Amino acid sequence: MTSSLSGPIVDTIVRTAIMEDIGWGDITTEILIPEDLQGQGSLLMKADGVLAGIKIAKDVFLNVDTTLTFTILKKDGARVKKGDIISNVRGTVSSILKAERTALNFLQRLSGTATLTSRFIEALTGLQTRVTETRKTTPGLRYLEKYAVRVGGGINHRHHLGDGILIKDNHLVASQRAGLSLTQVIQKARDKAPHTLKIEVEVTTVKDAVIAAEAGADIILLDNMTFEEMRNAVQSVGGRAMLEASGGITLENARQIAETGVDLISVGALTHSAPSLDISLELEYK
Amino acid sequence: MTSSLSGPIVDTIVRTAIMEDIGWGDITTEILIPEDLQGQGSLLMKADGVLAGIKIAKDVFLNVDTTLTFTILKKDGARVKKGDIISNVRGTVSSILKAERTALNFLQRLSGTATLTSRFIEALTGLQTRVTETRKTTPGLRYLEKYAVRVGGGINHRHHLGDGILIKDNHLVASQRAGLSLTQVIQKARDKAPHTLKIEVEVTTVKDAVIAAEAGADIILLDNMTFEEMRNAVQSVGGRAMLEASGGITLENARQIAETGVDLISVGALTHSAPSLDISLELEYK
Amino acid sequence: MTSSLSGPIVDTIVRTAIMEDIGWGDITTEILIPEDLQGQGSLLMKADGVLAGIKIAKDVFLNVDTTLTFTILKKDGARVKKGDIISNVRGTVSSILKAERTALNFLQRLSGTATLTSRFIEALTGLQTRVTETRKTTPGLRYLEKYAVRVGGGINHRHHLGDGILIKDNHLVASQRAGLSLTQVIQKARDKAPHTLKIEVEVTTVKDAVIAAEAGADIILLDNMTFEEMRNAVQSVGGRAMLEASGGITLENARQIAETGVDLISVGALTHSAPSLDISLELEYK
Amino acid sequence: MTSSLSGPIVDTIVRTAIMEDIGWGDITTEILIPEDLQGQGSLLMKADGVLAGIKIAKDVFLNVDTTLTFTILKKDGARVKKGDIISNVRGTVSSILKAERTALNFLQRLSGTATLTSRFIEALTGLQTRVTETRKTTPGLRYLEKYAVRVGGGINHRHHLGDGILIKDNHLVASQRAGLSLTQVIQKARDKAPHTLKIEVEVTTVKDAVIAAEAGADIILLDNMTFEEMRNAVQSVGGRAMLEASGGITLENARQIAETGVDLISVGALTHSAPSLDISLELEYK
Amino acid sequence: MTSSLSGPIVDTIVRTAIMEDIGWGDITTEILIPEDLQGQGSLLMKADGVLAGIKIAKDVFLNVDTTLTFTILKKDGARVKKGDIISNVRGTVSSILKAERTALNFLQRLSGTATLTSRFIEALTGLQTRVTETRKTTPGLRYLEKYAVRVGGGINHRHHLGDGILIKDNHLVASQRAGLSLTQVIQKARDKAPHTLKIEVEVTTVKDAVIAAEAGADIILLDNMTFEEMRNAVQSVGGRAMLEASGGITLENARQIAETGVDLISVGALTHSAPSLDISLELEYK
Amino acid sequence: MTSSLSGPIVDTIVRTAIMEDIGWGDITTEILIPEDLQGQGSLLMKADGVLAGIKIAKDVFLNVDTTLTFTILKKDGARVKKGDIISNVRGTVSSILKAERTALNFLQRLSGTATLTSRFIEALTGLQTRVTETRKTTPGLRYLEKYAVRVGGGINHRHHLGDGILIKDNHLVASQRAGLSLTQVIQKARDKAPHTLKIEVEVTTVKDAVIAAEAGADIILLDNMTFEEMRNAVQSVGGRAMLEASGGITLENARQIAETGVDLISVGALTHSAPSLDISLELEYK
Repeated sequence: MTSSLSGPIVDTIVRTAIMEDIGWGDITTEILIPEDLQGQGSLLMKADGVLAGIKIAKDVFLNVDTTLTFTILKKDGARVKKGDIISNVRGTVSSILKAERTALNFLQRLSGTATLTSRFIEALTGLQTRVTETRKTTPGLRYLEKYAVRVGGGINHRHHLGDGILIKDNHLVASQRAGLSLTQVIQKARDKAPHTLKIEVEVTTVKDAVIAAEAGADIILLDNMTFEEMRNAVQSVGGRAMLEASGGITLENARQIAETGVDLISVGALTHSAPSLDISLELEYK
Repeated sequence: MTSSLSGPIVDTIVRTAIMEDIGWGDITTEILIPEDLQGQGSLLMKADGVLAGIKIAKDVFLNVDTTLTFTILKKDGARVKKGDIISNVRGTVSSILKAERTALNFLQRLSGTATLTSRFIEALTGLQTRVTETRKTTPGLRYLEKYAVRVGGGINHRHHLGDGILIKDNHLVASQRAGLSLTQVIQKARDKAPHTLKIEVEVTTVKDAVIAAEAGADIILLDNMTFEEMRNAVQSVGGRAMLEASGGITLENARQIAETGVDLISVGALTHSAPSLDISLELEYK
Repeated sequence: MTSSLSGPIVDTIVRTAIMEDIGWGDITTEILIPEDLQGQGSLLMKADGVLAGIKIAKDVFLNVDTTLTFTILKKDGARVKKGDIISNVRGTVSSILKAERTALNFLQRLSGTATLTSRFIEALTGLQTRVTETRKTTPGLRYLEKYAVRVGGGINHRHHLGDGILIKDNHLVASQRAGLSLTQVIQKARDKAPHTLKIEVEVTTVKDAVIAAEAGADIILLDNMTFEEMRNAVQSVGGRAMLEASGGITLENARQIAETGVDLISVGALTHSAPSLDISLELEYK
Repeated sequence: MTSSLSGPIVDTIVRTAIMEDIGWGDITTEILIPEDLQGQGSLLMKADGVLAGIKIAKDVFLNVDTTLTFTILKKDGARVKKGDIISNVRGTVSSILKAERTALNFLQRLSGTATLTSRFIEALTGLQTRVTETRKTTPGLRYLEKYAVRVGGGINHRHHLGDGILIKDNHLVASQRAGLSLTQVIQKARDKAPHTLKIEVEVTTVKDAVIAAEAGADIILLDNMTFEEMRNAVQSVGGRAMLEASGGITLENARQIAETGVDLISVGALTHSAPSLDISLELEYK
Repeated sequence: MTSSLSGPIVDTIVRTAIMEDIGWGDITTEILIPEDLQGQGSLLMKADGVLAGIKIAKDVFLNVDTTLTFTILKKDGARVKKGDIISNVRGTVSSILKAERTALNFLQRLSGTATLTSRFIEALTGLQTRVTETRKTTPGLRYLEKYAVRVGGGINHRHHLGDGILIKDNHLVASQRAGLSLTQVIQKARDKAPHTLKIEVEVTTVKDAVIAAEAGADIILLDNMTFEEMRNAVQSVGGRAMLEASGGITLENARQIAETGVDLISVGALTHSAPSLDISLELEYK
Repeated sequence: MTSSLSGPIVDTIVRTAIMEDIGWGDITTEILIPEDLQGQGSLLMKADGVLAGIKIAKDVFLNVDTTLTFTILKKDGARVKKGDIISNVRGTVSSILKAERTALNFLQRLSGTATLTSRFIEALTGLQTRVTETRKTTPGLRYLEKYAVRVGGGINHRHHLGDGILIKDNHLVASQRAGLSLTQVIQKARDKAPHTLKIEVEVTTVKDAVIAAEAGADIILLDNMTFEEMRNAVQSVGGRAMLEASGGITLENARQIAETGVDLISVGALTHSAPSLDISLELEYK
């Protein structure tokens, strides 16, 4: 699925970033570059990966100067190689220089997340298990980072605390202190939650996974289980609920976890620790 | 130096992040946690590193609920170990749970940058060379990330395009097309720039470094030079300007670069690719 | 469930409303009321109903003047009668007068929605059918209006287009033009949607309701069906999906619709046409 | 008078409403509607009334997608019938679907207010009495609602507390406690108020109405008076001030009130309790 | 009249100004002033004048640091002399230094306007003529500057284009092209304007002043008339409308203009060209 | 110098100003000017001076109505004479009238600052001394006012507290209380400040000026020195640091101060007390 990266949330993020980087004007450029000098910049890959955020880059350039022409050569989701030119931007050189850094900062970060996601997807080739992110995102950029996960082949978990029920350890402990069993907690959530939301429960034992499934949980999060426990949970739950593995998942162990039969794995590193993908802008005059 | 992390910029960033994560309310918590349940959360290190952002974490908790009590046990800059408790927060459990993720997202990211910075500083132990970041920061978080670099022992480069003159390759090429020599470009910048700003010039040869120094550049950025070239530049410039090494600097080669005698090294990875430092919140009831 | 009405969304709405009503100052009050005159205002019900928004009213008074004391006598959800005093506010009279209209505007409108919702709930006494609102809300106030629906005893539908899949007539027609059957459309949605979201489909025939249920829809919206059709749909779907009746539902026909066995009814009028509940502020000096 | 519905206030309201409804994207549409599918939507009246807000509807569609073409077929103020098509919008179907609900929410609400206002105007046919609204408006939408009142044939009362002097019961009581007579209160207001503002005073007796007129009040608000009292007030004041009837005015008693000779009647229900006017969007492909 | 300088408009202006001046932190102070150093600053008059904005100054200090104690020694409207101490602020020195410039910038500017206004008031001692400002205010600060005019003894003209009818030359010319006489223009305005607003008309001849008065204008603006013409206008209009002199009014000619008998004079210079009143902050340690 | 007056800061300032002046609509114009009336306005100089802000004026007109055509006849920096037409704006008359006042308010104020700056520059004809402004700017307009100083021929001082080290009297006193000498204070600043920033120190004696220069200060601010002291400072420092004269500088004494040999003079009046330059808009119909 390709969600168009547009709308007021994106506008606000882009404008804030431009203001942050340009401040009260690109003094160097204003002093040294003639106002009417025309040129063309090429966005050039300095590493291999999966592209994400090319429309954001375009937004940045056009926000700085609506008269620039930005041509997309590679779309989001494209597998790009070092040396590929992914877009051209033509027009006033001083505008291109003002927008460059902000555009690249978005593009490198989002492509970093898309690339890391795609590597997890590749690690699971041939399996049904899907990959999703967590809420461990960069403050202010969650919307964009979740988009990058989709571009890389992942699916999105809930966006924020208001659009999903995820009963975690702390909720269970507090409820048990009030005398509620796991089953009762799930039923209470079912009763009181909006009918449009699924109920997800975090468990640490196979026994609790089974109880949760029987109580009607839609999704069960298996927290830091061993391969053996996950296999048992898959077998015992028997398709009555979706199973999500979480905790300590790396590119190295992802496939082995997926092979236990869980439906999806959630990986915090997709958003909190993906290294940037190196991209640069090369300028030429004509 | 410790810059107090406060003021309207920080307020805006914190409020935006909270709104992004809480959305229209933490439904799970509202359903399951009694409104008046009291408890205490401990922020617990899950890895070793340098702490940064503890005041931001406090701001997040207090923004969500002004009646919480947040006790700082480890200050920014502290070297912390896995298992250390860095702060306690007491009060209404539902408020603690609502603030948890956003507070940790800031803290883990900023501590990640501070920790990586401190590793570069350690790599240069005994040398005069200083470490600085670049403009390759996270859109919207530059102010905080630069703070984290300082906490880790680094110094800050210019904040944005408006508070420093940095004449890059593209500025030089455009100026040469207009018939200006490197010396003339620097003089032009000197004439037109605010008198409070230093002039920095990017060069790729030792020869140009010398020309720049003679033309009065305050700082000279040595772009992707070999160790040998850097040593020559240091010798030839002879202290007439500050020398900054940039491009492809890693923890592995940083010391060797510093030993060429450059005054500082700038490292983009401090902000664009520092992995998060793992921290969690443990809740208990009394 | 009682969701605490707080957080940055509410703050922004309240501040905007105050600015709109006070403008550049309550000139009349500034001219005529001595700055230090103290008094007490009582919020007085002028009609019977269900109270909603008392915390918003408090927020308005405290936003205008933090030194006012606002005592809540009746909580949200209380069934109140004409003549009941629902809160007192003490302090500087000029501040009370400045805040009065804005506080009442919120309170009357939200209580209007809660009251209308509660009347639907009463009409369904003894039945399992639940009541929910639609997206036909007041621009800018959706968050508060959904809260008022909950206060009145309803449950909430999705908040916006991003947190639920609702396949409407227009989506089906467009998909069929691309050669997809109803079953294929639902499967496509299932494949591409975030795993945390339920799939809802709008149908106009019993036959399509059955197809949708078999294709795995979680919720089926029965659009403007007759009582007979709804009864058939309930029987034919047989619990495989939740059934939602929608279109032309009034206090008069709601019970008869619910008796067909549908799981919930959605009523646009709860938010788009609920009359205000009359409340006034009575001031006295001591 | 036709006030063009434009400018920064309207922009802000429209953008906020779009963000509220679209959230992080119309997931259903993005999954099911091909990005390049073109079509045409028609805005169709489902009830009779007076149209208001067609430009706002246009703004919403163009804000979501600047490439849509929105053709206005009926202008604000037009008396429309069930079945009338009031505008067409052509272009990308996914954009039309994203904007639909927000556009209709504005249009239905504003047309509801315009329609109710026009019914009051009709009730007063042949009389000089004019109709105005109160400050009992929807928080955040006052500007638009006052516009709708004008479209329906009414005139506007003051916009907020800063652009009119309205001495109410509470101001009088407080002033009398300070020893001022009604005459003195009015003179004090006259002396201290900006010279551009009119002075309005609320009275409950004919005697006070006369005193107010003699003291130079420009407008006198007759609060909840009987028909007899209003007639007496009209006669006694004898044109020395404008007379405004207020309190408990309905479509049933409006004409009788107007026939007492008052200059205008103010009706809170125009903005706080007008039911929405039903309008829908019908989509077709070409 | 003393309008309390508070509310959301003022908050926004103050916060914007602080952010503008502090930027990403007062680096000098952070480097050199120990975080816990306590002291006291005194706001000291460096010139004679009328004070305005002392509460804004307080707001600035408390916005920067809520723990400061700000004691007001001279209230707005006080006639202050060079050497007077108008307030003390105690607490953390670094906070005092951060807030100093912004607080003074507001205070000096507003006191400048109040002082100039008071000089016009003095020039008219013994006459009935009042003094008002124009819309020639500083973009963004109109609310504050109008307050300063009141503090200096003036009264306020309309705040913006939406809260007063002022028919200027350009409106008359356009209306005459459409065949309307001056009388008809005024009647049209009267018919269509909100009943709460006064009608003001700009005229350049005595004859038109009389026509305007007869047509029911509330205020007549005499644009750039000679003393003789103004005297004639006063006599001819004979109290049927308020007369406002405008254009080229200085401290030198103000009294002579007022002596023609006009009701008020409007002076653009009060807001567009009032020089700052010099005030400084003196710091001491205890 | 060519600083383009554009970007998000300017957008925000312009939009805020328009909203402030237009409020909820230009009622007079809406009542009296036919919506489709076309015309042309000319911006006409009513005084001699240096133009600044013509692009801001254009922004205001286009923000109010994107269909207006604004033709710039005189660029910023032009020396204009009373009677010069500096631009034309064609299109809908009602839009021109709505934008007029806000556009002129910016233009008159910025041209006022540019004109005053240029008079200082003229006073120093033939000398090397440059002219700069201070932080005594109008809250909210610093960015624009600094631009106007550049247009008038001045150079800019630091923008805010975060982009320059300026060690003032209060910093020195506090540091001396902690036992630091002037030399030590400067070294401390050098050690801890970002390497990109220059160090400026305020001194009141020639002796301290010499100490500061020897300690490595980049700029030395001579506060309120006599001509004799300044001459001595110039001689004693001997080019080791830039010297800035500050305090009580007027058009009368500026040349004499400059002739002492200081490098620059800073003048607060450029921004805090420059009178507006009179400009008007003349409208004609075609």
